[in-house]
Amino acid sequence: MKKQTLLFAISIFASGISHQTSGQTPDSVIIKKISDEIFTSGQVYKNEEYLCKKIGSRLTGSAGAEKAVNWTHDIMKSYGFDTVYLQEVMVPHWVRGEKEIGKAINSLSGSETMLNITALGGSVGTVAQGVSAEIVEVKDYDELKKLGEKGVKGKIVFYNHPFDVTMILPFSMYGEAVKYRSTGASEAARLGAVASIVRSMTNYVDDFPHTGALRYLDSLPKIPACAISTLDAEWLSDALKKDSKTKFYLKMSCQDLPEMKSYNVIGEIKGSQHPEEIIVVGGHLDSWDLAEGAHDDGTGVMQSIEVLRTLKKIGVKPKRTIRAVMFMNEENGLRGGKEYAKQAELKKEKHILAVESDAGGFTPRGFSTDMPTATKDKILKWKDLFYPYGAYDFTRNGGGADISPLKKQGVPLMELTPDNQRYFIIHHTARDTFEQVNERELEMGSVVMTIMIYLASEYGL
Amino acid sequence: MKKQTLLFAISIFASGISHQTSGQTPDSVIIKKISDEIFTSGQVYKNEEYLCKKIGSRLTGSAGAEKAVNWTHDIMKSYGFDTVYLQEVMVPHWVRGEKEIGKAINSLSGSETMLNITALGGSVGTVAQGVSAEIVEVKDYDELKKLGEKGVKGKIVFYNHPFDVTMILPFSMYGEAVKYRSTGASEAARLGAVASIVRSMTNYVDDFPHTGALRYLDSLPKIPACAISTLDAEWLSDALKKDSKTKFYLKMSCQDLPEMKSYNVIGEIKGSQHPEEIIVVGGHLDSWDLAEGAHDDGTGVMQSIEVLRTLKKIGVKPKRTIRAVMFMNEENGLRGGKEYAKQAELKKEKHILAVESDAGGFTPRGFSTDMPTATKDKILKWKDLFYPYGAYDFTRNGGGADISPLKKQGVPLMELTPDNQRYFIIHHTARDTFEQVNERELEMGSVVMTIMIYLASEYGL
Repeated sequence: MKKQTLLFAISIFASGISHQTSGQTPDSVIIKKISDEIFTSGQVYKNEEYLCKKIGSRLTGSAGAEKAVNWTHDIMKSYGFDTVYLQEVMVPHWVRGEKEIGKAINSLSGSETMLNITALGGSVGTVAQGVSAEIVEVKDYDELKKLGEKGVKGKIVFYNHPFDVTMILPFSMYGEAVKYRSTGASEAARLGAVASIVRSMTNYVDDFPHTGALRYLDSLPKIPACAISTLDAEWLSDALKKDSKTKFYLKMSCQDLPEMKSYNVIGEIKGSQHPEEIIVVGGHLDSWDLAEGAHDDGTGVMQSIEVLRTLKKIGVKPKRTIRAVMFMNEENGLRGGKEYAKQAELKKEKHILAVESDAGGFTPRGFSTDMPTATKDKILKWKDLFYPYGAYDFTRNGGGADISPLKKQGVPLMELTPDNQRYFIIHHTARDTFEQVNERELEMGSVVMTIMIYLASEYGL
Repeated sequence: MKKQTLLFAISIFASGISHQTSGQTPDSVIIKKISDEIFTSGQVYKNEEYLCKKIGSRLTGSAGAEKAVNWTHDIMKSYGFDTVYLQEVMVPHWVRGEKEIGKAINSLSGSETMLNITALGGSVGTVAQGVSAEIVEVKDYDELKKLGEKGVKGKIVFYNHPFDVTMILPFSMYGEAVKYRSTGASEAARLGAVASIVRSMTNYVDDFPHTGALRYLDSLPKIPACAISTLDAEWLSDALKKDSKTKFYLKMSCQDLPEMKSYNVIGEIKGSQHPEEIIVVGGHLDSWDLAEGAHDDGTGVMQSIEVLRTLKKIGVKPKRTIRAVMFMNEENGLRGGKEYAKQAELKKEKHILAVESDAGGFTPRGFSTDMPTATKDKILKWKDLFYPYGAYDFTRNGGGADISPLKKQGVPLMELTPDNQRYFIIHHTARDTFEQVNERELEMGSVVMTIMIYLASEYGL
């Protein structure tokens, strides 16, 4: 019975009946095939396990990153995509060095308390013997400015800026607070600080420090910068209330090594009718080094490969060219994304859509967009097809970081929007492991991404 | 600035301006206060921890259930609800007895393999020395019927019916498969089986057996029935392919003890304008005995208390009476729900809405409903107020089990619909612990429940 309906519907599809978004139409049949394939024979979870457990962390320039390049290349080859290739890109090569040491020293008793810290990505190290200075705590840049050079010079600035948990979306909290991680070191250095500490970027209070990139502002001295776990941030804040002369000792041996060669990894299925129109689906292959880069962004790259694998497996010959791109170096440089856009421009490629998955492999909620209204209106016509999978929200703005350099070429951008209430437990921490990934949630995201890419390929934009 | 806006808006509210569902209206201000209170000072996660870790499992009739009755009574008292009381109800008292033993015995070598099983709630035990018989595997009732008495008599029926993972919602998979747990024993007994085994009710393949209630059909012999983990179900199915005479040994000492007295626990805030109109918000206090009943249904009862606590804390005086009800005995009898409805009818109480949370403390997706169209239309007018919290879906049908006996009195029913992709990892297993509950997800559910109850109280239905 089921089989009969399916064959009937496929024959309608093959006869080229025009697009409808409701009822027993070709689209709904293909969508069901996509969904069934991923739920019953999906490879995304198994691949994610391999990436996390056999390869592990993939900091740009590391052996892990190189392994991941080769493995994703080989796996896409094994799936029989039309073309699989590496795109060379020069990348920064920052290394963490030895485990960082951070401790608070009571000015009265001299007692020392070890704290959970981690160097921020891109930070310079301390001198070999470490740096030690009084701490000055600020909640934000306003407080920093009020202190001025007089209050900051020679000290270590401690940005204790909690996430605003009254916001509904953790990504909004992150967006509001992350400047203290990004440019806090430079702003502290501007006033003569010798190092900076930032409260970890999370709405949870726990023992895990969250790394992440900093950005040194030109012409300002580069000072060492670390993140401290939220629990220890609260402890340190209390300690300072009791002993305002508390010192902080920081030792980090992180450093920038010379730039090196790395790669974006690209797999492609050629369009059968409009091969010159390209749709990109991607995530970033690099990760931070503290764990396995499971949700950030193993899930995104594995989902992107799954999109192509699924379409090929169920026999869809996409009308337009579909490209899975594993971008290198999103976390500390975005070089992969920039190089990809540069090459696209040089080759005068026509990208009609770029979709990123880089917000965790959680259950999908919708897609955010960054595109002209007319293009978005076309996509909104497909909205009902996503509703059964719980992807209902197309209201948010934004594409992904890796695809953002395509924007100036006028490429419509999109990002998968998963539920992110659990994201900042693990984001950029030692907790970002395979065990945090739920199989069905990951598959649900893969399904809606595949549907989106299928529709864009079928109908254009 | 923020404070000023708030005061301004509150003064509008106090002046009694009529209901609007958009813009800076009284509703949006109250909703923000609800949200802020729960996200910044919420007690629901802390209470859930106490319930799980200090009280633990709460099988009807157990010491845990009694402790939970007393503690929830006391905590609602401590929050200063207008009335807090116990509602007596006679409940079944099934006990599991000693850890069950289930093993497969190879007919050729005699080798024994221990399997992960658990008695189904309500099952009779085996005789003291256990029962041993050949196994006959069926996928469904059709296969069972085909075997007939000849194929089944004297044997142990093994229902190996996997969840249909092509369905999008795990609750749909559960709905399709659960009959083999509920009435599989009786259907097997009808054909002369001596015991039954059911593949655990989950879409995941792992080592955890899932308990749950069975229902013996009248006039058929009661045979012992257990659930087997999905991993062991697959192992057993393989074993049977190799050795069709494989025997199963089952020993269970579960039994029904005499019925006993227990309680629903009820906390109430009296309506300021229409005290005779009652809104119920509830979950079930009892749980299975294998873990802590964290998601099933600790989260639901703790959320229900949180609704009243929050409204009281932010100074809302509800126009209608709001009642948090902790129902006893949902899992194996529904006696609490039935008694509550019976008393409501006897006292001629007018319930205008009953809302249950019994689908896990995950991030909210919407509300399912079971009510007349005209009533639902009123609720749909509030829909946009829930959208920012990710509760977008009001399309599903159904209320909760505990409130279902109110239906014949015409009470409109509703249930919180959380995301349930992770639910059947833990449902009715040893994994249903506090550690599986995410603080923010639980709070998000509490927020949308509180908003719903607030609106119903404010505007009636």
